[in-house]
Amino acid sequence: MDAWLASWQRLCAALGALRFLDINLRGIAQVMLQNNPLTGALFLAAIAWGAFAAGAPEVLFGGLLALLTSTFTAMWLRVDIQALRDGLYGYNAVLVGLALPTFLQPSPMLWAYVVLGGAVSVVATLATANLIRTWHLSALTFPFVIVTWALLLAAFAFDGVGGAAPPYAGEVAPLDPAVTDPLDFAAFATGVYHSISQVFLKASAVSALLFLAGLAVSSIPAALFALGGAALAVISAHLLGAESDLVSAGLLGFSPVLTAITIGTVFYKPGLRVALYAALATVFTVIVQAAMNVAFAPLGVPALTAPFVLTAWLFLLPRQHLGGEDS
Amino acid sequence: MDAWLASWQRLCAALGALRFLDINLRGIAQVMLQNNPLTGALFLAAIAWGAFAAGAPEVLFGGLLALLTSTFTAMWLRVDIQALRDGLYGYNAVLVGLALPTFLQPSPMLWAYVVLGGAVSVVATLATANLIRTWHLSALTFPFVIVTWALLLAAFAFDGVGGAAPPYAGEVAPLDPAVTDPLDFAAFATGVYHSISQVFLKASAVSALLFLAGLAVSSIPAALFALGGAALAVISAHLLGAESDLVSAGLLGFSPVLTAITIGTVFYKPGLRVALYAALATVFTVIVQAAMNVAFAPLGVPALTAPFVLTAWLFLLPRQHLGGEDS
Amino acid sequence: MDAWLASWQRLCAALGALRFLDINLRGIAQVMLQNNPLTGALFLAAIAWGAFAAGAPEVLFGGLLALLTSTFTAMWLRVDIQALRDGLYGYNAVLVGLALPTFLQPSPMLWAYVVLGGAVSVVATLATANLIRTWHLSALTFPFVIVTWALLLAAFAFDGVGGAAPPYAGEVAPLDPAVTDPLDFAAFATGVYHSISQVFLKASAVSALLFLAGLAVSSIPAALFALGGAALAVISAHLLGAESDLVSAGLLGFSPVLTAITIGTVFYKPGLRVALYAALATVFTVIVQAAMNVAFAPLGVPALTAPFVLTAWLFLLPRQHLGGEDS
Repeated sequence: MDAWLASWQRLCAALGALRFLDINLRGIAQVMLQNNPLTGALFLAAIAWGAFAAGAPEVLFGGLLALLTSTFTAMWLRVDIQALRDGLYGYNAVLVGLALPTFLQPSPMLWAYVVLGGAVSVVATLATANLIRTWHLSALTFPFVIVTWALLLAAFAFDGVGGAAPPYAGEVAPLDPAVTDPLDFAAFATGVYHSISQVFLKASAVSALLFLAGLAVSSIPAALFALGGAALAVISAHLLGAESDLVSAGLLGFSPVLTAITIGTVFYKPGLRVALYAALATVFTVIVQAAMNVAFAPLGVPALTAPFVLTAWLFLLPRQHLGGEDS
Repeated sequence: MDAWLASWQRLCAALGALRFLDINLRGIAQVMLQNNPLTGALFLAAIAWGAFAAGAPEVLFGGLLALLTSTFTAMWLRVDIQALRDGLYGYNAVLVGLALPTFLQPSPMLWAYVVLGGAVSVVATLATANLIRTWHLSALTFPFVIVTWALLLAAFAFDGVGGAAPPYAGEVAPLDPAVTDPLDFAAFATGVYHSISQVFLKASAVSALLFLAGLAVSSIPAALFALGGAALAVISAHLLGAESDLVSAGLLGFSPVLTAITIGTVFYKPGLRVALYAALATVFTVIVQAAMNVAFAPLGVPALTAPFVLTAWLFLLPRQHLGGEDS
Repeated sequence: MDAWLASWQRLCAALGALRFLDINLRGIAQVMLQNNPLTGALFLAAIAWGAFAAGAPEVLFGGLLALLTSTFTAMWLRVDIQALRDGLYGYNAVLVGLALPTFLQPSPMLWAYVVLGGAVSVVATLATANLIRTWHLSALTFPFVIVTWALLLAAFAFDGVGGAAPPYAGEVAPLDPAVTDPLDFAAFATGVYHSISQVFLKASAVSALLFLAGLAVSSIPAALFALGGAALAVISAHLLGAESDLVSAGLLGFSPVLTAITIGTVFYKPGLRVALYAALATVFTVIVQAAMNVAFAPLGVPALTAPFVLTAWLFLLPRQHLGGEDS
């Protein structure tokens, strides 16, 4: 793998078009915090499968359009070249571009919206990186969250991209009544797979396997923590009595998956203490996800990956206190 | 102009009462980020015209009462003398004092409210300045926004200044139905003028011209960016399909006007790259304004200039990346 | 008193079990920013009285369970030993443990919730301390607020700890109609006592006296500012026209009490200028409390001590500007 990557890097250095492709593939891979073009290619396959399987090719198109917009915007803004090559200006745009056609009806103005979101996501990434540098934190998917919230909320006020009123006081179906079925193995496995694939906003077991493969070629621990995080999220959500439909659709598990990868493998060195700490963070992400689902329901916009970002920052800020041997 | 200002400064240095007047006029001018007493005088005329034309002289009185309160509070708190003389402790208070009588019914307790708001706005200005110093940002109108939100929301719980229940789930008229009329030149011009005058919470073409004159005597680029920002906001809001009544009342344009001045002329050196960057920020302010209108409607309080503050900070944080020649 | 404390400290140094008790008592005392085990013991008596008098012993049990969990978690995370011994990792957990059984029905899963909240409150305390170190602020009860909000909001989505839907648009009883009775001395005294005891979430005059005794053994000024802050909060809430039931239940006064202690005695040296400044902060805390009550009503979760935290930070951030002799 390392030899293959080294050859690929030489090709990218020689050929501008390949470098451009490499930047965009790494942008996709960085959604799960990996810096690897093969991971990006497998993730892209997973996104494409999920989009076509759901009969929503516009989601794939939106993701690519926003990604390309962000790469050009980043070049125009003359961002740090190494960060650009690591894909750090693309992953938020990919998510913006996947989210907008997922939650809004296709229309000509929607694509202007996607381009605007892709461009502003670069500004938001630069701003967030500068804002949190003081605490040695990473921007994670915060830029995606704030840009998409603004665009989705605003869509309620714009005929061109939406125009309907938000639910406000209307019934909030996902919470009432909370039907909790027994959790057999099939339901458990479905919940785990969908928790992984929902990181990219689709429920698909095939996509989940492609995402796991993409993680594994970059980092075996990342793949294991993704799987373990999904399992822990599904089990704890079920024990707390969450609605079974939400659990098996992966809608309470995608933020915990990202938390498990981030806390368990990216910013701390794996180990028993860190694994326990990551488990606590993962369970608390389920709580924060449920809390934000409740708080955001009247506004008619999803919490996106905000539960992941907030919980991961909460558990990363005391970082110095986990250095040391296992106890 | 410069000679006139120099003479005025000498008079202020000699006469305490003139210095006091100068501080308060600059406080009014700083609402649009100008440090110029003549600008302040023209803005005051615009405010007075807008208040009397709308049959609401209490708005002018509220603005002046809060401004004087803030100046005395700042002196009591022994703030930095140069910042005081630049009007930096007054502009948030002016806005608090204009906003409270605009959104609440006059009553004896309302004036206690205005005095309280004016005093706390100084504390909030000091706090915000200290908070964001790390990132070399300016407080903008953030102190006005948080103090006014607190006072307006609280008014729903206090018989003495309000007492009605907020709408919560009630119908949200501004969003539904969204009527979008064709944008002829008269509607366009009305929207542009009102976007400028709404910075001070009133829809008035005469006031808008006085505000533009006030900007022009301090900074021609600021006047041009205000005009351009208003035009861009009106056009993009219309293209997105915003309700025509909101657009022509300037209610989607006042925050973008402030963004255009701030990004285009205050913190970056004007130029083609900066103008494009300011245009992107201005359009995104329209999005954030619409988003916050939707999110705040159930609470029955306005977004005020929060969309400007948040978007301007977002586009100022990556500042280092715009230094350099045009491309 | 000092001699007694010195003897106690020697005993704690000699005996691990006493040290452990000392840490937990100081954790209770730190809710009102005191570092004194006797204060903690008196506060514990006040909590116990309030819980049993209200027929809710599970509230006492929840507070102790969360406190012990936090102490063990802090030890496992190898936190700063001096901060641990000062009780700084316990006070947020105590409040989490008191709040959860106050607002949720007892159930097996509730105690898992309390343990989770106690553990995460330590992480949140470390995170908050690191976050605000830049501005030399203290974490106050911010960790309690965010952890409890997450757990209470999430409970609406979990059958095991709640499961009911939040009110959203439902009627908001505390605000409408706002009945304002005359404030005679009995009503005034009741409001003052309850404002103090509500810091620990119960309305009880006996508890209030125990809390005042606990403050007095640690700091006479703290007890006086608590009493003065409660009186000022009751009077200003009444003058503004707040609903009398809320005022006499202490529900608009507990955050102002904490503000008065914090601004008046902890971070500034007492004096006339500071007392006036603390009075302004105390009155504004009443405003913020009312504002957050209104804003949070549709979500069905209380504002907790967020009004105290936000207002205290607002008035602490400009700290440098109050140094100096009285004027």
